[in-house]
Amino acid sequence: MDTGSDTHPQVSAGIRYEDLQEGQGCEVRRHLTGEDIDAFAAASGDHNPLHTDRDFAIAAGFADRIAHGMLLASWISAAIAEHLPGRGTLYLRQSLEFRQAALPGDDLLVKLSVSEKKRRGRVILSCLIVNEATGKELLRGSAEVIAPS
Amino acid sequence: MDTGSDTHPQVSAGIRYEDLQEGQGCEVRRHLTGEDIDAFAAASGDHNPLHTDRDFAIAAGFADRIAHGMLLASWISAAIAEHLPGRGTLYLRQSLEFRQAALPGDDLLVKLSVSEKKRRGRVILSCLIVNEATGKELLRGSAEVIAPS
Repeated sequence: MDTGSDTHPQVSAGIRYEDLQEGQGCEVRRHLTGEDIDAFAAASGDHNPLHTDRDFAIAAGFADRIAHGMLLASWISAAIAEHLPGRGTLYLRQSLEFRQAALPGDDLLVKLSVSEKKRRGRVILSCLIVNEATGKELLRGSAEVIAPS
Repeated sequence: MDTGSDTHPQVSAGIRYEDLQEGQGCEVRRHLTGEDIDAFAAASGDHNPLHTDRDFAIAAGFADRIAHGMLLASWISAAIAEHLPGRGTLYLRQSLEFRQAALPGDDLLVKLSVSEKKRRGRVILSCLIVNEATGKELLRGSAEVIAPS
């Protein structure tokens, strides 16, 4: 179990396909801030008011403005790129199910595990983001990648 | 067909579920820059050297460093939030197939179309990103959203 840092991620050497084991996992802790949401809105151009306007989000039934689902998805991408398999991994597919909203101030755990090793370097990773305080699942999905060789 | 701007996206009024038609589409033109990739690396924490290190990417067989797949995915999210259905849309699911790399300088078209109206405000959108110059498909996927009511 590898616990990464959310503040100064470093590119570690990628884990080679040959060295990956089914069931192997990593867990990355990330603290969500309003600034994260603002930076993602700017980087993506996604200015949905559910993410940028607290009053709009509250009127829609949330306790505060909510993180972009794709911001959480980008944290899965980051965990893949930085930790499992790491440096040089190539992304082929991703499925995403957005189950619960994440709010500024939430502490989240990004969890990956190797669910299947396929042929020619291909690996299936199960992907989960949970709220650390409540244990609730926010995002669930599956990734297919080519691990470093 | 609604053509959006990549530079100053504006939140338009969302298209209500009742007013959406199967087959209805939108197309958003986006120009990819190295700065987009850098901003996404910072916002996501995904510093995979395929995205940040030109020499590394070339050694891996690409012509230049490549955009994060999830950066392109965030442009789908943005097109949904800004154009179809637009303001106030809630994201439920997204599938993504990363087919070809996007490079700095590429002009991309993000294409959405309503493939199915389901019950209770749910809508399936087919999602495509193509390289405008070559016509090649870079990303293909499907989204399930709840349209504004």
